[in-house]
Amino acid sequence: MNAPQKAQAPKTAISPTRAENYAEWYQQIVRASDMAELSGVRGCMIIKPNGYGIWELMQRDLDRRFKDTGHENCYFPLLIPLSYFQKEADHVEGFAKEMAVVTHHRLTNKDGKLVPDGELEEPLIIRPTSEMTIGTAMAKWIKSYRDLPLLINQWANVMRWEMRPRLLLRTAEFLWQEGHTAHETFDDAMFETKQMLEVYTRFAEDVMALPVIAGEKPEHERFPGAVTTYTIESMTQDGRALQAGTSHYLGQNFSKSLNIQFQNREGALEFVHTTSWGVSTRMLGALVMAHSDDNGLRTPPRIAPWQVVIIPVIRNDADKESVMAYCQSLKTEIQTQHYAGEAVRVKVDARDISSADKKWDWIKKGAPLVLEVGPRDVEGGKVCVMRRDQLDAGKKFPTRAEFVAGVTGELTAIQKNLFDEAAKFQQERLVTNITTRAEFDAYFGKPADNSFVGGQGFVRAKWSGDKQSLDALDAFGVTIRCVPFDQDGKTGICVLTGAPATQDVIFARAY
Amino acid sequence: MNAPQKAQAPKTAISPTRAENYAEWYQQIVRASDMAELSGVRGCMIIKPNGYGIWELMQRDLDRRFKDTGHENCYFPLLIPLSYFQKEADHVEGFAKEMAVVTHHRLTNKDGKLVPDGELEEPLIIRPTSEMTIGTAMAKWIKSYRDLPLLINQWANVMRWEMRPRLLLRTAEFLWQEGHTAHETFDDAMFETKQMLEVYTRFAEDVMALPVIAGEKPEHERFPGAVTTYTIESMTQDGRALQAGTSHYLGQNFSKSLNIQFQNREGALEFVHTTSWGVSTRMLGALVMAHSDDNGLRTPPRIAPWQVVIIPVIRNDADKESVMAYCQSLKTEIQTQHYAGEAVRVKVDARDISSADKKWDWIKKGAPLVLEVGPRDVEGGKVCVMRRDQLDAGKKFPTRAEFVAGVTGELTAIQKNLFDEAAKFQQERLVTNITTRAEFDAYFGKPADNSFVGGQGFVRAKWSGDKQSLDALDAFGVTIRCVPFDQDGKTGICVLTGAPATQDVIFARAY
Repeated sequence: MNAPQKAQAPKTAISPTRAENYAEWYQQIVRASDMAELSGVRGCMIIKPNGYGIWELMQRDLDRRFKDTGHENCYFPLLIPLSYFQKEADHVEGFAKEMAVVTHHRLTNKDGKLVPDGELEEPLIIRPTSEMTIGTAMAKWIKSYRDLPLLINQWANVMRWEMRPRLLLRTAEFLWQEGHTAHETFDDAMFETKQMLEVYTRFAEDVMALPVIAGEKPEHERFPGAVTTYTIESMTQDGRALQAGTSHYLGQNFSKSLNIQFQNREGALEFVHTTSWGVSTRMLGALVMAHSDDNGLRTPPRIAPWQVVIIPVIRNDADKESVMAYCQSLKTEIQTQHYAGEAVRVKVDARDISSADKKWDWIKKGAPLVLEVGPRDVEGGKVCVMRRDQLDAGKKFPTRAEFVAGVTGELTAIQKNLFDEAAKFQQERLVTNITTRAEFDAYFGKPADNSFVGGQGFVRAKWSGDKQSLDALDAFGVTIRCVPFDQDGKTGICVLTGAPATQDVIFARAY
Repeated sequence: MNAPQKAQAPKTAISPTRAENYAEWYQQIVRASDMAELSGVRGCMIIKPNGYGIWELMQRDLDRRFKDTGHENCYFPLLIPLSYFQKEADHVEGFAKEMAVVTHHRLTNKDGKLVPDGELEEPLIIRPTSEMTIGTAMAKWIKSYRDLPLLINQWANVMRWEMRPRLLLRTAEFLWQEGHTAHETFDDAMFETKQMLEVYTRFAEDVMALPVIAGEKPEHERFPGAVTTYTIESMTQDGRALQAGTSHYLGQNFSKSLNIQFQNREGALEFVHTTSWGVSTRMLGALVMAHSDDNGLRTPPRIAPWQVVIIPVIRNDADKESVMAYCQSLKTEIQTQHYAGEAVRVKVDARDISSADKKWDWIKKGAPLVLEVGPRDVEGGKVCVMRRDQLDAGKKFPTRAEFVAGVTGELTAIQKNLFDEAAKFQQERLVTNITTRAEFDAYFGKPADNSFVGGQGFVRAKWSGDKQSLDALDAFGVTIRCVPFDQDGKTGICVLTGAPATQDVIFARAY
């Protein structure tokens, strides 16, 4: 199961370890946890059962939050006529370099070879995002203030051609949701934009156990066509930032380009204010980056497809019947318990492979609680329990009744522990005492130290807002991730220029 | 709200009526029920909130059935390299004429005009179905009989270029699920193929309230590349057939083309047997076609986004507070009741439009139970109830307690009534006494009598299996829909040729 290890290193299920080679470790984790793999189509991935199972639970939770805030789901076309994009200059410029273009609508046999045929009058773009399509529909649907707010969400695949794909984090095709709303006033639209970022924040922290820093993107990092972009940024175990969700106030930019007007309460025509917001399967990458260890993924219970996995340990045919019966009835009993408002999700792994292989399989996949049940457990009315987030703590042997009574508490504790560990890590790597350019350069200047051990993190420091000063970041591959919402409002000096500066920003390398 | 009607005709919400112009009635129903509309992209539709809401409930129910039968969800790429398709001749031939082809991966500005740029080395096809992609992955994943059966499902969008699009029924892009499975033996794969058709049958009849005829497609109507195709066929109110779901036994055709081999229990290499099966948003079209009347859609309660809609009837500001409070507490009380294992889905419609407009809006959208609550109802502790499936029966005025206690029963009765009505209609239009060519020609020979009143239906008759005889059907636009599973096994005469024939088949015009 394991590649050869250095003599002293403890045995781990994933090789290399984070400390040995973080980038390669990430690839191995994604594969070993049955999350995803690259397909034969350049830059496109296959999301495998464990990855898709987590995504389904993420969808379900988010979808409920969207509906609770008044949104309805729709579905809009995959393909967007090129002419639509030409209506919004900033928007098309932002996406033109990564658009997959459909030019033909059939194949034909030419000298024994299939070639594209039936050229389209107008090329069609596979949606990189749907502002243009949904805005065009809004222009038809909205007549009066009575039609507002219009609150729509869509679950869909999108495509942005990627030159350097990376599993889950950056793929040509990915799955996401995109909210699109239209409002009467600036205030209403701004409320919505902030509300949805708060929905994402609560989801990231409470469900994914991902601590995030919420804030506003600086002007040069805004969504193409947006007036304001808000973001939540999570931290990876090599100290990089990962944008986990964004919410945009689009102002009247799109409503003017697409002529989305309404008759206001005074009877005059006005352009609506629009917003858009999205999270994607990229969040699965954030999950891996934040919660995995050298033995695989550790899935927060709230989104674990199986919260408890029971492995029958059968040594001979005589054991089989009693052990399997015990496992099945244990499963039924555990399902009577509830966690986060739902029956606990339990699986008995009855596959025809060794129990040791099963155990490591579920450790790699990150099941929060792994139980082993052998003939002696059956006899003693016990279970053997491993907590995935605390493998080093070893196995425990409660009675069956104790385990069932405590399972909700255990899952709650695991969820909390994963968040606390990630929050502690983020706190430790969030540097707030760098105030000069020399210190800044010394911190980010070490080349390619994005390792798990001793790597860099986030620098929170004052910035003057001078765009010229950003040139200094290019050499390090560092960007401003956001202007956090919590500001002290004091004037200090810009870490890049030494000029007076009031706002704190987060500097980091990013995925 | 209504277009001008003929003097004697009863007033209906949809104009024209089914009897006046069935095809146009269908378009109007889809629009008026907020199900879908055509978009600016040729042949592609927007699925609107009511249509998508129904689709979500269909998905949830089907997904549970798939998981209960052991399947796991994955997600495979949207784009398929052209070379993949060339591996299976029948398959590619079946789809070549309707493939959307991606040839470029960016846009560039050329003399002020955006044009496709970055030509791909190999064209990519937007999936019309995913046998080739998923089969390619199976070839990597499957090594031994221990990896079988491999039971995968995918929820996805697919694209088949349509020259004559029709909302919901035939659009270039549609949403569906596609199951793909691999098995050790013919028996296992055939069991799966039939099992999934049975899953579809139960779903269609018990959840969608759509009576269907299940059977096998004749050879010339099989899925491209399949050995056997099973189908369920529903009937529309103009007497046509609508294929509502299919399940294919693909034999070893795809495993041989894609080299999906496994080491069997004896240690030898063998090709797996594969199946695939799918239902799509087309079923939303079947729903409209089967259950709508001249006032709009009638949604079966099992898939109604809102099973009960409460309309506050407020005449002046003095009423408002008490009526709204009554409606909200009524909603809470109704939600304590359960139907089909879930809390009843209730909505209070608090929009700023007239209560009459609200009432007709929900009638057109097909909410099973529409309540109106005014000041007198509040005073008397009553509700005013309309059953959407029996509008002619008029309003009823139970007490609030009576309504709440009876709501589950009412929903059960509506679900049953919609099925029974559709089953009765199908039975009446299923003709079984046509035995000669002259009778057959007389029945289908009337040109274009696909009307709601007096239109044609299904002919169940013996057919010899002689493919030449099918030429006779072309003039009528009739096809063989299926060989129903229930056969009497008796030898009779072929309705087309007069030759001896044993099998009964269903002849019909189809959507």
